[in-house]
Amino acid sequence: MRILLVGASGTIGKAVATALSTKGHEVLAASRHGAHKVDLQNADSIRALYKQVGKLDAVVSCSGTGAWKPLPELQDADFDFSLANKLMGNVNLVRLGVEHLNDGGSFIVTTGVFGREPIPGVTALAMVNGGLESFVRGAALDLPRGIRINAVCPPFIKETAEKLGMPGGLPATENAKAYVELLEGKQTGQVVVTG
Amino acid sequence: MRILLVGASGTIGKAVATALSTKGHEVLAASRHGAHKVDLQNADSIRALYKQVGKLDAVVSCSGTGAWKPLPELQDADFDFSLANKLMGNVNLVRLGVEHLNDGGSFIVTTGVFGREPIPGVTALAMVNGGLESFVRGAALDLPRGIRINAVCPPFIKETAEKLGMPGGLPATENAKAYVELLEGKQTGQVVVTG
Repeated sequence: MRILLVGASGTIGKAVATALSTKGHEVLAASRHGAHKVDLQNADSIRALYKQVGKLDAVVSCSGTGAWKPLPELQDADFDFSLANKLMGNVNLVRLGVEHLNDGGSFIVTTGVFGREPIPGVTALAMVNGGLESFVRGAALDLPRGIRINAVCPPFIKETAEKLGMPGGLPATENAKAYVELLEGKQTGQVVVTG
Repeated sequence: MRILLVGASGTIGKAVATALSTKGHEVLAASRHGAHKVDLQNADSIRALYKQVGKLDAVVSCSGTGAWKPLPELQDADFDFSLANKLMGNVNLVRLGVEHLNDGGSFIVTTGVFGREPIPGVTALAMVNGGLESFVRGAALDLPRGIRINAVCPPFIKETAEKLGMPGGLPATENAKAYVELLEGKQTGQVVVTG
């Protein structure tokens, strides 16, 4: 498959790139500073990326973030940022990508455990992850030409936990397996919880 | 309890108002055109409402809507409207309401079945309902002074189905029971699915 991977330079994205390449797929790596540049918050930047890469079999996003603050400290700008980045960034990647996907192609986005099982201080992150999961369930019923959409919902990733001096976490290589299985499978509208 | 009920003039809200009044609670009915006027999409309007009503024991929202169109027809404006109304309207009702709630007070918002079990053509509605549910789970961990927050997730309501000439649905009076139970209970961060 010819696969556009957005967020290819992050901890999750690097492991997904390796997993997909190992399986013989052609991976076009996009990120803010990579070979294929994209700013998820800027729809024109997403349009330019799709124009640059041409027809695709799949679009995988390991990208998007949000504000990490307790509710009483969250300002309007924190909500705006979280909505524009993690939620609408990925939603627009899907909306603008449909016409560039071959028949039967597929999208995978990455949500996160906080939408389902938050900890204190992640209300905005929880909100945008929950919104993205429900978007995936809804969009799966509306996409044309047999195009599928699914989400991977990772727990804390081991490599990220290590950087923060925390124990535990799922190795990024283990998490990456879910993307390969979804791309090569037939399911749609699913959220695969990897942790 | 002294309860602010937003969306008091709708099908769900009217039944909730009756159920709360019957239990002896004082209900302050707010809606776009009611005694206490509020426009959920306008934060200044929410601030003015709170200033008008004074201290409260609870805020119940049966308000908020979103765009009902298939994904290929959804425009930027449809997403903006859905995010500003159902999602951020209710989020702001909570954020701006905290200081007006007595210790141990509670919030209840209303989500909807499409966030969990969408049908074709409801992608934007699904997204904002899913986001609101995850907001509730996250906010429950961050609210101060023993303040609780929960959501009611109704299915299609019988009275609404009848207006659309459709069979089935849950009677609004049945759905309203969940709000009374949540207000008089102790739980927080819960989404009560009524259908």
